[in-house]
Amino acid sequence: MATPVSKKKSSKKRIPAKKPKLDHIHHIAIPVPDIAKALEWYTSRFNCEVEYVDETWALLEFANAKLALVLPHEHPSHFALSRPDANKFGELVTHRDGLHSVYIKDAFGNSIEILEDL
Amino acid sequence: MATPVSKKKSSKKRIPAKKPKLDHIHHIAIPVPDIAKALEWYTSRFNCEVEYVDETWALLEFANAKLALVLPHEHPSHFALSRPDANKFGELVTHRDGLHSVYIKDAFGNSIEILEDL
Repeated sequence: MATPVSKKKSSKKRIPAKKPKLDHIHHIAIPVPDIAKALEWYTSRFNCEVEYVDETWALLEFANAKLALVLPHEHPSHFALSRPDANKFGELVTHRDGLHSVYIKDAFGNSIEILEDL
Repeated sequence: MATPVSKKKSSKKRIPAKKPKLDHIHHIAIPVPDIAKALEWYTSRFNCEVEYVDETWALLEFANAKLALVLPHEHPSHFALSRPDANKFGELVTHRDGLHSVYIKDAFGNSIEILEDL
């Protein structure tokens, strides 16, 4: 059985865990009408790495987050947050990159993608 | 005066530095017509911290980057990269938060802010 002293110690240790971990911004998506031209524009000016590219989208890796170049008719301009509870924001859809996410809009119509963080 | 041996050692050490460090995405800026309402919307749904707020803009800290809530007539929707050579992209302007930056547009009209990374 724990003594009153050990109970106090345990309580003190739990305090930092009450502060939730900040959400991670997985990517920003920018609509561009020509993926190849946009890829050339971004990679020739900025220090980033091409993680994926085809004719319909590209993913560039920056130091702390990714930049997706997308066709305007396929995706809205948005940013994506990773959360373990993404399904609380709506029904998750499996995308071409294998990730599961749901798109929501803020109170003013800005699009936000909530990605399942497994 | 350096000996040939020490020159060789110095040359070898420089090899890893040839790969440039990836650029850092400092923030994403989302236009919202009401900063207080937007702040409530974002902070009640996501794990983030309010770094700054007044009636004209707010800055939220996420795990790996910041989200700026801005008035539509003051700033376009954009993202900001930090670079030591920001002044190569245009004349830097000092902003209300004390940072120096320049706004550029990509080949398709998307706004990008290049922040001086001191």
